[in-house]
Amino acid sequence: MAESDAPDDQSLMTVADRLRRAQAEMGHQGIDWLAVGPSADLRYLLGTEGHLSERLSLLLLPREGDPAYVVAGLEAPLLEPLRDRLEIHAWEETEDPAALVAAVVRDGPGGATPTVAVADELPGVFLLRLQAALPGAAWREGGLLLRPLRSVKDGREIALLREAARRTDAAWEDFIARPLSGQTEMQALARLLELTHATGLEPGFGHCSSGPLTASPHYAGGDRAIGPGDVVVFDWGGRLEGYHSDVTRTVVVGEPEPEFVRAYEATLAANEAALRAVAPGVACEAIDLAARAVLEDAGYGEFFIHRVGHGLGLSIHEEPYLVTGNTLPLAAGMVFSDEPGVYLPGRWGIRIEDAVLCTDTGGERLNEAPRELTRVG
Amino acid sequence: MAESDAPDDQSLMTVADRLRRAQAEMGHQGIDWLAVGPSADLRYLLGTEGHLSERLSLLLLPREGDPAYVVAGLEAPLLEPLRDRLEIHAWEETEDPAALVAAVVRDGPGGATPTVAVADELPGVFLLRLQAALPGAAWREGGLLLRPLRSVKDGREIALLREAARRTDAAWEDFIARPLSGQTEMQALARLLELTHATGLEPGFGHCSSGPLTASPHYAGGDRAIGPGDVVVFDWGGRLEGYHSDVTRTVVVGEPEPEFVRAYEATLAANEAALRAVAPGVACEAIDLAARAVLEDAGYGEFFIHRVGHGLGLSIHEEPYLVTGNTLPLAAGMVFSDEPGVYLPGRWGIRIEDAVLCTDTGGERLNEAPRELTRVG
Repeated sequence: MAESDAPDDQSLMTVADRLRRAQAEMGHQGIDWLAVGPSADLRYLLGTEGHLSERLSLLLLPREGDPAYVVAGLEAPLLEPLRDRLEIHAWEETEDPAALVAAVVRDGPGGATPTVAVADELPGVFLLRLQAALPGAAWREGGLLLRPLRSVKDGREIALLREAARRTDAAWEDFIARPLSGQTEMQALARLLELTHATGLEPGFGHCSSGPLTASPHYAGGDRAIGPGDVVVFDWGGRLEGYHSDVTRTVVVGEPEPEFVRAYEATLAANEAALRAVAPGVACEAIDLAARAVLEDAGYGEFFIHRVGHGLGLSIHEEPYLVTGNTLPLAAGMVFSDEPGVYLPGRWGIRIEDAVLCTDTGGERLNEAPRELTRVG
Repeated sequence: MAESDAPDDQSLMTVADRLRRAQAEMGHQGIDWLAVGPSADLRYLLGTEGHLSERLSLLLLPREGDPAYVVAGLEAPLLEPLRDRLEIHAWEETEDPAALVAAVVRDGPGGATPTVAVADELPGVFLLRLQAALPGAAWREGGLLLRPLRSVKDGREIALLREAARRTDAAWEDFIARPLSGQTEMQALARLLELTHATGLEPGFGHCSSGPLTASPHYAGGDRAIGPGDVVVFDWGGRLEGYHSDVTRTVVVGEPEPEFVRAYEATLAANEAALRAVAPGVACEAIDLAARAVLEDAGYGEFFIHRVGHGLGLSIHEEPYLVTGNTLPLAAGMVFSDEPGVYLPGRWGIRIEDAVLCTDTGGERLNEAPRELTRVG
């Protein structure tokens, strides 16, 4: 943990509160231990992401009582600010950390046959070693345990997500005031990310596709030069105290073909229909269906080849996922993307993405970068 | 995979060769399947890191026969350049990818009770889902399977590591020509990383500590202002086509105290002793012990609190680890760090790190940034 990440008193209160809430959820779900390595989950619970490496570093939260943390001795000083809240077990370079974890776990709830939830991002190699060291344990997905906590944002989290979105929008307005033609995708993207970073956001991610490559929604960008008539898609974001922005805008260089304009208007209508469908208690899949219905009516249903959105927070993709089959009801405080798209193979793709907050009464956009079809030079 | 990452013909030959060698190793170790998600392991085997997300994306290599790749449908176009070498199984947004993996695996070697090696970095949540979908399987650490391949570099890999080291050294020489005093750790580090990036290296990582904070080897940097008398440690690197550089230099602002000079000379002697100990057939732990003996003789043994080195390649830390207890013999083509350190709590720390190649006859440094004690403004 860098000095600048050291938790202040307010953060320490948040840590205590989140650990208590995780323990309450463990009680509901019959989980004896929660094991969390360096990850967004750890940042959520402890205020630090820790240091992910080949050295096992693991928060061990029992259903009741004080949390333990197993850490390489040389990294233990980084946990100093949390020393009063964690029972720290440091291991030396020649020790077996999995055996140390097993000893801590066997001494707590569940004994030698505990039910252990493992945070989703823990590298598989550590899970295999823990399974070998604790052969009597049953293993569960930590994501199912942490979802009810992480997916509903508190006031401070919403403020950070709102501010991250606002700064990303500001970078876009600067960016789009200048022509794109003649730049490669990577050059255009680099300028957009530089403007985003200049707002004070930490680096996030960025994709830029142009021309026929826009039809592949996960193409990240390359050396193709942007030219007249090209559709160009930018999907990018930054982070504020770890909280992500994530926005997509689709523009056209010069004059678009008529079908592109029709498909763009349909995508925008789908984006707006999804927003209007948001309200507490509505199933996640209903938001996806609201956007999908608009695109199906417009004749583009089969070209909308992904879900309409994903939760947004300390991870760029997290619960809740807005996808067919997810009957989880939305709750006030959830933040997620609203990003319908249309992808015509060999021709072009379109995606319009905003972050949306579910409030007590409906959906509120966090992004306000212009959504109308923008023609650039 | 971005367009610029698309493998050329040479890379495709390398892919075929590495997959064959992995299969041979699977035969030796009695492994039926190797499962590899987006990671450095995947880049090693396929020439692409893939796209790590909550959507399962998995190379499935059987002991004999053609590899399969399970991927989300919307990411399948990214595998187009490898289509002739992979049997691609695309899953739709509402399908269960773990069930698809299980179906592919059950249809191959080992049937419903295969032995499956899982690449170390695969997120635990996917391993849990695969374990649930394949209850008859036995699970092994993929790292043990891939270590013999990844730890011994071929000529192209060595050339990339050498060039990455050379550029990092060049950035250091530019960097250290200007004073540090008055800058914060993060400001100084930002300039060093900018110079490193300007050599054409992709972003890697960076740590800067100053004053008493240098005594914590994994402190990453913060807002402390560097001032007269401070010891300052920089540990950083970049990447060239995925291959890392990793170097540490320790400097002092103005005049150091006498004990610092003694400890610095001892650390440098330990760095050189480790280098001299390198030769094919020598146990990894012997390199650690060679450095440790020097520091013990100088009275600093208890303050050298970590192993002397780690392998370096597509991962910043990988096999071979130069640590007590590791009897693995070095082999020509292995590349690893040589980084002894001395850390006096509350006072200062020192680390001097180079990348070293094990040649047919001994150790060859890849870094040549000056190692003598440097006084800066």
